[in-house]
Parts: sequence; structure tokens; C-alpha cells
Amino acid sequence: MRSIVEAYLSDVHAALRDERGGAVADYIPELAAVPDDDFAIALCTTDGALYAVGDADVPFTIQSISKPFTYALALADHGVAAVDAKVGVEPSGDAFNEISLEPDTGRPRNPMINAGAITTASLVAGGDDEERFARVRALYSACAGRTLELDEAVFGSELESGHRNRAIGYMLRTVGILEDDPEPIVARYFRQCALRLDVRDLARMAATLAAAGISPTTGERVLPEAVVERTLGVMTTCGMYDAAGDWVTAVGLPAKSGVGGGILAVLPGQLGIAIFSPRLDAHGNSVRGVAACQRLAREMELHMLHVGRPSRSAIRAAFDVVDRPSRLRRNAAERDVLQRVASRGRVYELHGDLLFSGAESVVRAVTEVADELDALVLDVRRVDQVADVARRTLVGLRAALAEEGIAVALVDPERRLPAEDDLAPPGWDGDGIPDWDGRFTAREPALEWCEDRLLERHGTAACLVERLAVEDHPLVARLPEECRGDLVGALARRTLPDGEVLARRGDDAVGIGLLLRGRIRLAVTGADGVQRPLWALGPGAVLGEVSLLDGSTQLTDLVARGEVELALLTREAFDGLEGPTREALLRALVADAYVAVRRTSGALAERLG
Amino acid sequence: MRSIVEAYLSDVHAALRDERGGAVADYIPELAAVPDDDFAIALCTTDGALYAVGDADVPFTIQSISKPFTYALALADHGVAAVDAKVGVEPSGDAFNEISLEPDTGRPRNPMINAGAITTASLVAGGDDEERFARVRALYSACAGRTLELDEAVFGSELESGHRNRAIGYMLRTVGILEDDPEPIVARYFRQCALRLDVRDLARMAATLAAAGISPTTGERVLPEAVVERTLGVMTTCGMYDAAGDWVTAVGLPAKSGVGGGILAVLPGQLGIAIFSPRLDAHGNSVRGVAACQRLAREMELHMLHVGRPSRSAIRAAFDVVDRPSRLRRNAAERDVLQRVASRGRVYELHGDLLFSGAESVVRAVTEVADELDALVLDVRRVDQVADVARRTLVGLRAALAEEGIAVALVDPERRLPAEDDLAPPGWDGDGIPDWDGRFTAREPALEWCEDRLLERHGTAACLVERLAVEDHPLVARLPEECRGDLVGALARRTLPDGEVLARRGDDAVGIGLLLRGRIRLAVTGADGVQRPLWALGPGAVLGEVSLLDGSTQLTDLVARGEVELALLTREAFDGLEGPTREALLRALVADAYVAVRRTSGALAERLG
Repeated sequence: MRSIVEAYLSDVHAALRDERGGAVADYIPELAAVPDDDFAIALCTTDGALYAVGDADVPFTIQSISKPFTYALALADHGVAAVDAKVGVEPSGDAFNEISLEPDTGRPRNPMINAGAITTASLVAGGDDEERFARVRALYSACAGRTLELDEAVFGSELESGHRNRAIGYMLRTVGILEDDPEPIVARYFRQCALRLDVRDLARMAATLAAAGISPTTGERVLPEAVVERTLGVMTTCGMYDAAGDWVTAVGLPAKSGVGGGILAVLPGQLGIAIFSPRLDAHGNSVRGVAACQRLAREMELHMLHVGRPSRSAIRAAFDVVDRPSRLRRNAAERDVLQRVASRGRVYELHGDLLFSGAESVVRAVTEVADELDALVLDVRRVDQVADVARRTLVGLRAALAEEGIAVALVDPERRLPAEDDLAPPGWDGDGIPDWDGRFTAREPALEWCEDRLLERHGTAACLVERLAVEDHPLVARLPEECRGDLVGALARRTLPDGEVLARRGDDAVGIGLLLRGRIRLAVTGADGVQRPLWALGPGAVLGEVSLLDGSTQLTDLVARGEVELALLTREAFDGLEGPTREALLRALVADAYVAVRRTSGALAERLG
Repeated sequence: MRSIVEAYLSDVHAALRDERGGAVADYIPELAAVPDDDFAIALCTTDGALYAVGDADVPFTIQSISKPFTYALALADHGVAAVDAKVGVEPSGDAFNEISLEPDTGRPRNPMINAGAITTASLVAGGDDEERFARVRALYSACAGRTLELDEAVFGSELESGHRNRAIGYMLRTVGILEDDPEPIVARYFRQCALRLDVRDLARMAATLAAAGISPTTGERVLPEAVVERTLGVMTTCGMYDAAGDWVTAVGLPAKSGVGGGILAVLPGQLGIAIFSPRLDAHGNSVRGVAACQRLAREMELHMLHVGRPSRSAIRAAFDVVDRPSRLRRNAAERDVLQRVASRGRVYELHGDLLFSGAESVVRAVTEVADELDALVLDVRRVDQVADVARRTLVGLRAALAEEGIAVALVDPERRLPAEDDLAPPGWDGDGIPDWDGRFTAREPALEWCEDRLLERHGTAACLVERLAVEDHPLVARLPEECRGDLVGALARRTLPDGEVLARRGDDAVGIGLLLRGRIRLAVTGADGVQRPLWALGPGAVLGEVSLLDGSTQLTDLVARGEVELALLTREAFDGLEGPTREALLRALVADAYVAVRRTSGALAERLG
């Protein structure tokens, strides 16, 4: 099958192929001698997918694209303050080979000009020059995913004719920025610039920066995240020589170019781009490289300041629990109370990545209705990543609601929100934050919890029927009067303490159970061994009839919640019923079963919708 | 209830309150005279939520924070090329009041230094000076959400003592960048700088830029998106005077400060920040403003180059259709075929915002299995926004799969993916792209479609049972032999053409239907009038029994798909059955109902899990 992404890159390549502007670097013979018409584009995602078109096998020397990597290594070795003392982060406005030292401190303006790069080369930790260079090469190689080799000819030529860089080195020595003999430091800088790679290697190096320091090839962290962030910041303002401003407005990706014809560009979090085309413009940037980056950034909407749209709310759905109640069978008095206090119990379903603005939108929405609220459920199952600031903000919300006497529960099977002592919420100086009032792995028990909280606060005496008389059980009441005695006489009483398992999935039928008191939780245990709660049954419900009547085994686990009392009709007792009682019971069960089908279909339809 | 976000901002405010460094601007008496200890922080989200702490009611003059807005107005008035001809976008490396003209063109380096700002002020369209200033003020006011007033004292003082800016104006006139008398242009620039606002206004102006040009207060677009993107780019490299590099590495938000003590910072897509504290550092930036921005950016993880983690895959779930089949009742031969060709029909559920890298990950995953594939379903119901490049990439995937003879259907109720002639896919030069092979509003019919494609290609003769004899219908087969004749004799035949509605939700019971040929689609029509397909019934299914037995009305719409043949047992016929036949039928229906309960519960459990 043809590759869509390569087809696209080929299009861009073909459109720019005939661009003839610019000239190869000629300050050393080895660079002046390279074929000037090679042109390759490569793209690497943060998870390592690589696409390349054009002359992707042609090697070239990394040259100034080495600068951000050596800067990153110096930062990793010594920390920001020590590096900052030696080299600034301000764009110079001058060409790349200007000395550009700050008048007051003598620091090179930034690490992307030669003076700054020679300074950061001097900061790489290690014993002797060989070891220091080995560390530089090891870092570049880890980013590229293979060991990079030195181009001895280019290195030799730079060493022979690099007078200007030597002058810079001695100038840095004069002002005390270099503390040692500049000759070996400048030589080491020449060696790092003469490492040879191709456009695929360069794309993988770019993707390592895009992944905040993790190699897309090996998945290993090769640079600390904070170091990469700072390096990208410097590339943004100083990476494209004196065309940085134009670059940021037209392309908007942190980038670095080299006189070897390479350009590396980074879309943080997404991908790395590499271009190779040796003809350079007056700034020293690859002509076709700049054009290709502009086109890719525009067409692929890669600009880091591009706002496709304002960020969406983190709230996927918000509703009163009364509008999507639990599937627990409530009695008429309970249903009346829940209808009456409708908006005092609410559910907020969140989704996406929670950054500050997402958490803020949740806090805002809840705050607006807090006056009316007794119980709140935050369902975070569809949330992906949660930034620390969002976590702290939601814990802060929890604390503020507690002060108002509002109960808050989470549906959070993957524990995306912390226990409260994990993180102090912003601006909170109380005596510790109360725990969440409930923490559930599925929504259904959280809905029951929410309804129960409302009934606790607002319930009437009629809600508090703890035990149903067997004659009042709806299944019995459904039978013609003349059959009821026969059925009730055949029922056996059974009690279960809280937590006892009445049956497990796969067990034989337990008989038809009429629930009189307490609750039975239905649950399924997945292949992963995790028990997932479905809904619960309350007084008035029927259970076990499925397995009894179709002779199959138990479909779900049945677990007592609270003290449970059942009236049970065993298989033998069922078979012993009088004919008319049995037919009446069957009809009643079919009717009851279809109440369940209706509820289930309704729930499913809502989810499918 | 206490405000979490304000509590957090108060914390930051309290921590920086005692910072005494810096001094107020003193180049004109009116600025030198302001109380120097005021300090306010405000934050405004793109949807208009505003938080403010400290001296939020104290007015100050906008000063240089006006520059990006006037630059944006010039861009909107004349386009990029015309503005670029007059003013560059490169950081100058010099202080804000340096003239910094490019040696070759005479252009000011960028619009954030005074020379550039005076130039952009000259570019604002309009008849006379009053009208031009009115347009400037109208733009600022639209961003701030209220009409901003002029501080006449500050304006007068600038006008009197602004010799340096006058000098800049005449210099710009000399080199031809200004084409008119500089005096009224410089005066107009003084007026724009002397507009008075408070930190809330400023936060709303920042949020307008964060929302790519839409006012958070009114929801109206006040600047074109491309103009805002370019303005943010220039702010990134040139916004914080000569500290731009330091700002990008330490804070990483496009920003602009003014000598009035204000700072405005933008997190694209999320929020705007404003700080007011008049004591300035040597660069002319508010000391506490810079410190507050650094702290907010770090703690709130707002840095635009911050990579919380590499972007996640756009694929939420991927599975063979055989592992999560449709709920259509298939016969044994069909089930065998589907098991055998298992991985040739696959479903990919996508989620989140689809940018390039997300679409690329989908293309990659599908390409890996394309050799094995006959039919593919892309379920994009959980996708939020789709960038154009992602849309084109997925259409390209569809085209490439068509070349391989692979059928592709969408579950796309909100039509997030276009009809194929909307967008030419990248690198595609064929004779037009074929339409999607199926487009569904729910997943269930797409699963049936996928199975049907597999059966078309790989089905055996045994799969092709078009019509079931009534004796072979499973419900009949379930009865004891001696009852079957009685039942079959009571059944009436009924045929329906494709699309005919057998019943609608709420209709009276139609009787018990035994489906012999064709399919019946169950559907629910929501409050919004949209019919949502549930699952389908095929030959061998039973329908209508629920409503008949519990005397209720029809739960779902029933619609014929293809030519349908039914054997129907009406209520009268049911009542006329012999006693033992009726009891046997009831037992068979209960068993059948529970097959449905099991399937439904299973489907629900999976979704709940």
C-alpha cells in the first residue's frame, strides 16, 4: 500500500526541487566541494515512525546543528546557573560568526552563535579531551539512534583554516569566559561539527527533543526534560542565526540550521523534522530547507503558536442525578423525594487532558451551582493526563466543598486523582484536606451513593422502609390473589451478612430470590481478575430467575451489601407449584424480565446514542 | 464558597508583595508620580472567566503594551507584505528606545521597539488622525470588553517631553519609512500609549490574543486568526525588550510589557495573564510582573514549549470485529466463517483532537495490517476537532485502501470527516477519490456492515440461507414436539418491503413475531427527533413478545431492512393456544428473553468496564 505521509513529503520535495537559489558554504574546501543539488526531507514522530524522501542516504556534517545538543549536555552536566554564568540566552541580531560578547559581562550572547558554542563545548564534563568528545558523540548518537562517525577530511580542513573560530577562542580566553587553553577546546568544537549523519539521523535527533529528551528509537531518556525545554527556548529565539524573528513568525518551530545544509525543527510533543539541501542563503540557512519548513509548518498547521480553536471545556457532560438515575429499584416515596430535590445531586463527567484551564472550567461550573448542592460526583474515567496544577485545583475544590458541607465522590478506577495528602492544594492552609467521600471504579455505584446522600438528607419516613413484607413484594403482588398463598408457602427465608457472596458467575442457579431487605450488588469479574460493579438490586427486586428458568449458570457475581434478607424459591419448590400458580408466576417473571430489558436497553441506547 | 483560583493567585501575590526592587519610570513626571507599590494579578480564560487579586482597580496607562495591538491592526489593514516592507520582525538586541534601523533597508528592526511602533501607528488606516486614533481605541476597547479612556495628563506630558520619539520620527521620515509629517504620527503614538486601563482590562486583552482574536467578553472576532498568530510570533522574540531570550527560556509565553508597570502574557488557546506593578528593572519590565509570570508559568506548567508527555496515540481501541461482534443473530455457518477470517475485519476507535501526528499514527497502524484486511471501520465519534491536515491524511488512507480493494466505513454521526471531494488528499493525483463504502451514525450497524463484507467475500453456501422455514425457527424448535403443530397453526404470515416500519415506539403490541427472512432494525428516536439505530434482528429472532406479554406499548421503532418475512402470533391467537402449548411457549420466551438480557448485560458491562 502506498504511504500517505511519504506521498505528501514527496509532493513538497517535488515542488521545491527546482529552487536554485543560494550557494554552498565555501569557507573550507571540503564543504565547497559537496554536490550542491542534493535534497532530502525526513520526519520522525515521538514514537519513532520515520518517513524520508529524496536523497536521504547522502551523508553530511552536522555543523552548527550540534550547538543545541552540546548546550543541552552542558546544562545537564552543570545546571542552569553555572551555564548561564558563561553564556547568555539573548538573540544577538548579528551573524553567526560575529563574536557578540555582552559588553558588561563578556559572555557570548547565546549558545547558538560560534562564540557561545565554543563556550558550551568547554563546559562538557569529563577527564581529558578524548573523554569529553566521547561524551558529546555518545549524546548525539543516542539521539540519532546509531553511532555517528567523524568526517576526518572536514575536521582536518576546519582545523587548518578555522582562524576566525580560533580568534573567537582567544578572545573568550582574554575575557575569562574560557578558563583554559582555547586551542584544544576549539579543536573539540571542530570535531563535534564534523560528525557525519544523514537526514534520518537528524530527524530522530529532532524527535528526541520533541519527546522532551526521550529517544524515539530506544525509548530511553537521554536528556532531562527541563534541559530540553530550556534548549528549545533558546532555539526559538536564537536558532536560525539572525533570521530568528522571521523564522518564529513564518514557521514557528524551535529549529537549528548548519552550514552543511541541514535544518532540524521540532514540534514539541509531536514530531521532529529534518531537511538537507546544501545551498545556503545569506544568513547561512539552507534555502530549500527554509522553504520546506515554511510549507510544512503552514500546511500541517505545526506552528507552535497556532490556535486551532480556544481550548474546549473539560466537562463532557453534566447532569442532575435525577435525570439519569441509578438502576437501583427505588420505592415510590424515594422516587418522590429524589424528584423533589432534583438538582441537589449532580454528576460531572470530565474528559481529555486536564491542564489548568480545564480544571478551572470544572471549578467554575461547580461553584456556580454549589449553593444548591448536597452531593457531587466527578467522573474522571475519560480523563487522560492530569497536570499537577489541575490535580491541586480539584483537590482544592474538594476542600472548599467540604467547608460547605457538600459530599464529593469520584469515579476514578485508575486513580488519576490523588489521595488528599499527596498534594497541598493552592492557597490552602487549613488543617488538612478531608478524603473524598466516596471513590468508585464505575459510575453506577456512584449514582447510588449520590441518591443515598440525597435520601439521607431529605428522605421522609416512607423512604425508610427497611424491610418489605413478603406479601408486599411486587412479584407476589403481581399474581392473581388465588395463587399467592401457594407461592408464599413455597418460599424459604435466607439472610446474608454484609459482603457475603450469594453466587458467583458460573455457579449453578440458586433459585428465584425475592429481595426483602438490603441490597445485592451485581458484578462481573473480567479476564484481568478485576471485579467490575454493575448495578444493585434493592428490596422488591427479583434475582436468580434467569439461571433457574433457562437451566444455565449464574451470569454475574451476586454480593450482599448491608444485611440482606431473601425469600427463595428453589428449583424443587418451583416444580412443586400448582399448574395455574406456575403459569401465573411465569407470566409475572416475563413481565419483570422485560422491565429489566427495557432498563438495560434504555441505558445502552443512551450510551450508543 | 471560596474561589480556588483566586486563592492560588493570592498566594502568588502575597509571596511577591514584599519584593522591593526596581524603580518607577521617571522620564515624564506623570509616571514618576504614581504610587510605586501597587500590585495586581489577573487571569482571564478564553471563555471569559476572570480572576483578579491585589490592587486590581488601580488604573494605569497601557504604554508599550499597545504595540502588538497596533501592529495587529496594521496587519489586518494592509496584509503582511505591506507591513513587512516598513518594519521587520527580528529582535534588535538593543534597548526599547534605540532607533535600531536595519542598515540596508532603513526599516525598524521590529514593531515592539519605539521606532517600529511609530511606524505601525503610521500604517493604521483611516481618513484623518482622529479617525485613525478612533480605530486604534476601538480595537483596544473591543479586546478589553469596555471603552478605554485617554489619560490626558500622561498624554500631555509625553507630548511635551517626548523628544527622543520625535527624533525617531524624523529619522524614519529621513529614510522614507514614514511618508508623511512625523509630528501627528508621533502624537498619535503618544495617545495610544496614554490609554488607561486596569489589570482586568489587560487580562481580557491577553485572552483575546489567546483565543486567536475572539473577545472573551463578547465572543466576537475582533482580529483575524493569522494576524494574531503573527503578532504572537513577534511578541515571542521581541516582546520583552532586550530580555526576550531570557523570557522565552524562563517563562515561555508570548508577552509584552510597558513602562506603566503592566505586563500582558498569552498562553495560546488557554488564557491571558496580566500583571500590574510599576517598579521596573533595567530592561524596563515590571520587576514583580516578571517574577509573577515566572512563577505562574512554572507552577501552572504554562510554558508553550512544555511537553507534559509525548502526544498520545489517536487510537483509543482497535479490535477484530470477531472479538466484539455485532448483536445480530448469525447462523452457525456464518459464525464459523467469521471466526475463520477473524482479523480481516477490523475496527479502529479514534479519540481526542486529530492533528497531523494523530492521523499519522492511524495511517501507520492500519498500514501494518492492510495485507490481512478486507474491511475496516473507523469510529470517530469520540474525536473532537480534526485539523485539515488530519482530514486530508485520512482521506488519503481511504484512497490507498481502495486501491488495495479494502472497504472502509465510518462511524461519524457528526460528519467530522468530509465527503471526498471536499479536500484533495496530499500527494494524490488520481481520478478522484472513491466515497466511503459506508457511513453510519452508530457503531452497531457498522459492525454488521463489516461482518456482511467478510461474509460476502468468504461466505460458504451454508451462510446464504435466505429464508428460514417456520419449523426451523429456534423458538418453534424449542417447544416440545407435541406442541409445535398447535403453535404453527396459529401463526399468520406477513411480508414487508425494505424500509417499511412494522411498529413505532409507543404503538400497541403487534403480536409475537418470528423473523424468517430479512432484517428488522431496532431504533430509538430521541427527544431531538434523530433516530438512533440500535441493533438488528435477523432470521431466527423473536420480536414483539415484550409488549404483548406485559401489555405495554412498543419500546423501539422496528424497521424492515431488505425484504422481510414474519410469522406472527396475534394476541387473540396467543390466548387461543392450548394450555400446555401456552406454558411451553412462555418458558421458551423467558429463555429467549434472557438470551437478550445476557447479551445486553454483556454489552453494557463491557461499556461500563
